[in-house]
Amino acid sequence: MRCAGVHRLEAQAPDDVSAIAALIEAGRLAPGSIVAIFGKTEGNGCVNDFTRAFAVSALRALLSRHLPLAEVDRVALVMSGGTEGALSPHWLVFTSDPAPGGGESPALAIGRARTRALLPEEIGTPAQSAEVARGVAAAMADAGITGPDAVHYVQVKCPLLTPERIAQADARGAATATRDTLKSMALSRGASALGAAIALGEVPGDAEPGDPALYCTRCGASAGVELEDHEIVVMGLSDSWSGPLLIDHAVMSDSIDTEPVRAALARLGLDAPGQLAPAQRARLLAVMAKAEAAASGRVRGARHVMLSDSDISHTRHARAFVGGALASLVGFTDLFVSGGAEHQGPDGGGPVALIARRS
Amino acid sequence: MRCAGVHRLEAQAPDDVSAIAALIEAGRLAPGSIVAIFGKTEGNGCVNDFTRAFAVSALRALLSRHLPLAEVDRVALVMSGGTEGALSPHWLVFTSDPAPGGGESPALAIGRARTRALLPEEIGTPAQSAEVARGVAAAMADAGITGPDAVHYVQVKCPLLTPERIAQADARGAATATRDTLKSMALSRGASALGAAIALGEVPGDAEPGDPALYCTRCGASAGVELEDHEIVVMGLSDSWSGPLLIDHAVMSDSIDTEPVRAALARLGLDAPGQLAPAQRARLLAVMAKAEAAASGRVRGARHVMLSDSDISHTRHARAFVGGALASLVGFTDLFVSGGAEHQGPDGGGPVALIARRS
Amino acid sequence: MRCAGVHRLEAQAPDDVSAIAALIEAGRLAPGSIVAIFGKTEGNGCVNDFTRAFAVSALRALLSRHLPLAEVDRVALVMSGGTEGALSPHWLVFTSDPAPGGGESPALAIGRARTRALLPEEIGTPAQSAEVARGVAAAMADAGITGPDAVHYVQVKCPLLTPERIAQADARGAATATRDTLKSMALSRGASALGAAIALGEVPGDAEPGDPALYCTRCGASAGVELEDHEIVVMGLSDSWSGPLLIDHAVMSDSIDTEPVRAALARLGLDAPGQLAPAQRARLLAVMAKAEAAASGRVRGARHVMLSDSDISHTRHARAFVGGALASLVGFTDLFVSGGAEHQGPDGGGPVALIARRS
Amino acid sequence: MRCAGVHRLEAQAPDDVSAIAALIEAGRLAPGSIVAIFGKTEGNGCVNDFTRAFAVSALRALLSRHLPLAEVDRVALVMSGGTEGALSPHWLVFTSDPAPGGGESPALAIGRARTRALLPEEIGTPAQSAEVARGVAAAMADAGITGPDAVHYVQVKCPLLTPERIAQADARGAATATRDTLKSMALSRGASALGAAIALGEVPGDAEPGDPALYCTRCGASAGVELEDHEIVVMGLSDSWSGPLLIDHAVMSDSIDTEPVRAALARLGLDAPGQLAPAQRARLLAVMAKAEAAASGRVRGARHVMLSDSDISHTRHARAFVGGALASLVGFTDLFVSGGAEHQGPDGGGPVALIARRS
Repeated sequence: MRCAGVHRLEAQAPDDVSAIAALIEAGRLAPGSIVAIFGKTEGNGCVNDFTRAFAVSALRALLSRHLPLAEVDRVALVMSGGTEGALSPHWLVFTSDPAPGGGESPALAIGRARTRALLPEEIGTPAQSAEVARGVAAAMADAGITGPDAVHYVQVKCPLLTPERIAQADARGAATATRDTLKSMALSRGASALGAAIALGEVPGDAEPGDPALYCTRCGASAGVELEDHEIVVMGLSDSWSGPLLIDHAVMSDSIDTEPVRAALARLGLDAPGQLAPAQRARLLAVMAKAEAAASGRVRGARHVMLSDSDISHTRHARAFVGGALASLVGFTDLFVSGGAEHQGPDGGGPVALIARRS
Repeated sequence: MRCAGVHRLEAQAPDDVSAIAALIEAGRLAPGSIVAIFGKTEGNGCVNDFTRAFAVSALRALLSRHLPLAEVDRVALVMSGGTEGALSPHWLVFTSDPAPGGGESPALAIGRARTRALLPEEIGTPAQSAEVARGVAAAMADAGITGPDAVHYVQVKCPLLTPERIAQADARGAATATRDTLKSMALSRGASALGAAIALGEVPGDAEPGDPALYCTRCGASAGVELEDHEIVVMGLSDSWSGPLLIDHAVMSDSIDTEPVRAALARLGLDAPGQLAPAQRARLLAVMAKAEAAASGRVRGARHVMLSDSDISHTRHARAFVGGALASLVGFTDLFVSGGAEHQGPDGGGPVALIARRS
Repeated sequence: MRCAGVHRLEAQAPDDVSAIAALIEAGRLAPGSIVAIFGKTEGNGCVNDFTRAFAVSALRALLSRHLPLAEVDRVALVMSGGTEGALSPHWLVFTSDPAPGGGESPALAIGRARTRALLPEEIGTPAQSAEVARGVAAAMADAGITGPDAVHYVQVKCPLLTPERIAQADARGAATATRDTLKSMALSRGASALGAAIALGEVPGDAEPGDPALYCTRCGASAGVELEDHEIVVMGLSDSWSGPLLIDHAVMSDSIDTEPVRAALARLGLDAPGQLAPAQRARLLAVMAKAEAAASGRVRGARHVMLSDSDISHTRHARAFVGGALASLVGFTDLFVSGGAEHQGPDGGGPVALIARRS
Repeated sequence: MRCAGVHRLEAQAPDDVSAIAALIEAGRLAPGSIVAIFGKTEGNGCVNDFTRAFAVSALRALLSRHLPLAEVDRVALVMSGGTEGALSPHWLVFTSDPAPGGGESPALAIGRARTRALLPEEIGTPAQSAEVARGVAAAMADAGITGPDAVHYVQVKCPLLTPERIAQADARGAATATRDTLKSMALSRGASALGAAIALGEVPGDAEPGDPALYCTRCGASAGVELEDHEIVVMGLSDSWSGPLLIDHAVMSDSIDTEPVRAALARLGLDAPGQLAPAQRARLLAVMAKAEAAASGRVRGARHVMLSDSDISHTRHARAFVGGALASLVGFTDLFVSGGAEHQGPDGGGPVALIARRS
């Protein structure tokens, strides 16, 4: 039996890992127990966001002071850029330890996997979806999660195209799915999410990226210039894990559809008329959500301008707005809200995963 | 007895007044009844936001087809730029007509006033606050509102500094409060709001801009390059008005403090555990709110990056985020959320006014 | 015989037409002589740039005070957004009058044409190129320019896709070339420029958009949300025109290839070792150029970041940089530099047209 | 006798130090010879530009593989963010070695110094100028430069204010010069440059920041969130140095005043009518320049919009534009152009330093 833990810690800068270091020094966090670290960094969350890579380098430097390189490499480091609005840069440190006796089960289970590096021309194609589907299955096995229904969240960190990578493909006479680097982030997220949907049996195995009606209800995909393969983390409930933590999820149908999230909170024992009370907030350890601008250009009939704004990327608009919608519900702002929900929930909406301590 | 009306109408572009024109042509809106038009336009809401002036020119062109110039000039046109996130560009058309018999009273009352043009060097100073205080008193009288307690919202549109206006002051050897044009918007909003607070007896008459502990609980100030004086509109409840509309207000203490707004909705008969139900939304005609980035750099202890982001103005961040927080509460996105709440509510928070139809 | 004139006038804001009005009032500009007005406005030059439409509305209001509507409609109004760096917002007013005797010939000749409105799904396709090719031929005839070699500049203002226009096509089951509104500006400029190249015999009549090796050496295309058809203005030399003005052009092969422009200046009698001397600047009436980020991601082997910057559109980067390169040559900053040179000159470069007074 | 060397190397990303590593591995660069590394990184060059700190961490990691920590600490690492337009991210590696016999003298001389850490409230004040003046004198001594006239360039990397640092001052009841983090960069650059001017005898020792008529003709100051003290590097000509490298400088009086730079190139034996020929470019090893938006809002009488643009910082506009102006002169784009020239050259202009190999 294993027991999962989650620490939500603040970051003063993309490379500020002092809160994690302090926990380690205080003996409250064993470096060897860390299975994954998610980071919400304060860059633009788009192509030229180097805060993700900077964070990864700082995290690896910290872990290297405590672990052999091979173990450092086993820790899944998933950075998502963009803390627009009042969203707060933070770390989510996920741990796995042997379970002490008497813990409740099933409990939060975590597994991970990596795929092979993608060729630039594979980004946004069924080949990428197939790779991710294989990776999600491997991560489920690693987590000891026996069936798709027990999966509540799949985090995929995927690659994107840069002018250099496009040039590499050109040199081989291979055509990339787009020459627009920002667009490539969307295509990569979409193909990755479709791969998760295939693995979870939500869409047919031969589903191809493109149709917004095909989506995963439990996947958050985030693209980053700092990797060429996929970093996959699966979270759910498993009888081979025990302990105080639970996970559940909801699907928002549009940018302001927070009622399903309220219902999921209630299922976790966090029932509230309006915003969570302070005592309830303390029990909610992690909120992981996807946000995007509806391709329809409208939310409940009212026009939004996110897709015609050439000054601010629509992913930045969406993170800020959905971040506000969720923060008004839970009462705090260090939420892991990631932008661009292609094939992640319905058009304009997105999945939300919640990890809470049992009451 | 007068009776106030409010129409919330969509805008497809800053100069798209077709929805207002259609209402006029359908005989459902008498041009002569219009006392004020608020517009949420899709520019950056900052210094070089020409969507406000473009909207004003389109509105004046429309009104000029129906009213003599003198009457067109009497309509208060208050444009606020910035529909970040999923906020939706829209018009709020306020009307005043002779009240039919039998209407309930007190009811929503609306009054307006303009001040003299400010000199560039007066922007952000006590001289500006004094001008606005006089204007608010005049607008209250115009509305037939007898005491400050009956005032629920004061909208002030104020001027800002441009390189040209700073040069004018320089030419006279006069020093402006700042040479930073974006900063001048904040100083102008702050001095204007302090003026409203003086008029409402919330701060001493000799209060000077600067101390964030001094603020107005019922004022929204918005700066625009398109005017040099102040356009003031006061809304509240008055026995000399009757009809179906009510107004109330709340003060958010930070960017996610939506519970006071929920309480205000309940006072208006719009009680809901979570998001307003569709039938309730239909009764909520206007939401007017201020949003800002807390100068402390934190929201409930968690760091925000709005004030250190050199790519996106903190006012844009704040509108998107607070817009999301309020939209998740009311269930629609065409909200008049304006950025920069200096002396408008406490640091990081802001006033919210709500106009609803009686149940 | 006709005689062309050019006035370069400053704009204090997108709707500031006072410099044009002053010239008219002074009797130095006959409204009836105006054939075209180009405007460099201070918006972002991208999709949500409303400064172009605001400028058009102000220009039409001014012209309507002096001309019947039919004549106002005949004036070509070509607005290009974006005055990045030290580029200066300005108007270029082109006039045509009966030539007084004794003027030198050939001289600057100007002609114009409009095309039918494009369907959203035609943007970026050969159908658009064909429409523009027809329009350029018509404008050449209107200018009395007998052969392609005598054409030195073709200005095309073309439409773009907005979420609303994409939705219109969707509603008819028609597929647009892209769903990315910013991208649609590039596709529209490219197909338009290819149309000009067809009309000038620079590429085969069946050339299709896409291959960067196919381009026009004398075309500047600019997309704007304010029109649905094409506004075309052709400039060159014609024996049926006489007077003091000449036009020539150059093609920059990359963002810093200013030597061909120096050579063109010399051909116009403006020979200078470095920057033009004040007396020479006075003779240079208009500089119209295209700027773009090289798709290769490099300029003379050195990497540029314009295509991977998600904060600032590459067209804004390119206008600022090429604007600086040209201004350092000519010695003034009110240059009509337009961004996005797809099929306008080689990849990363662009055409530059120069209008000068004979020495 | 010492001999200075300069390597200009490309960076594929802020942390890409592979070109430097390759030179070391090839035995063409001795790590112990490195006295300073300047980096032009691709961030926004403003407050939340983490590419500078990311570059510093990558450079220190590289140097640490070859040098003891004490020696790594002695290398001046000066990062300047912002490669707008076609400016290219690159490294300038400065070396000092014992001079082989027979080298020409005087030659390029390099010295460096650091100051104590500044208190937040000292930024932008005479206290900062005094610290920098002391540091420049120390760096001159380190370089063996005997008099101010032999100094051609002073690079100062200075600190800035962040919300956290402002809060530190607040906690001590100390008032910072501004609460606007972006503005603090300008104040810090200005006070630093004034310090250099004091050290070079260009202004009185008691000069206070503010008056634009007081400036340094040979200083480039750049602010960065990654340091709290000042990193100072002085370059000039000294008889105690010999070898193939020379340095000279020019002062641009506005954003397009490139003629003085052309004259400086000629003094270095790089005389050209227009753009430098390929052979000449190869001899020009480094171009270090400052760019800024004229506070007057005009360049040679024509309005610029850099100071009223709330979407793009004026420093980004200025770097792109002046970068283009200089690149059109020298024929390449990896120029060390830094934004914000407060007290560095006259208002709207700035110093330009040039390092070339003797013909």
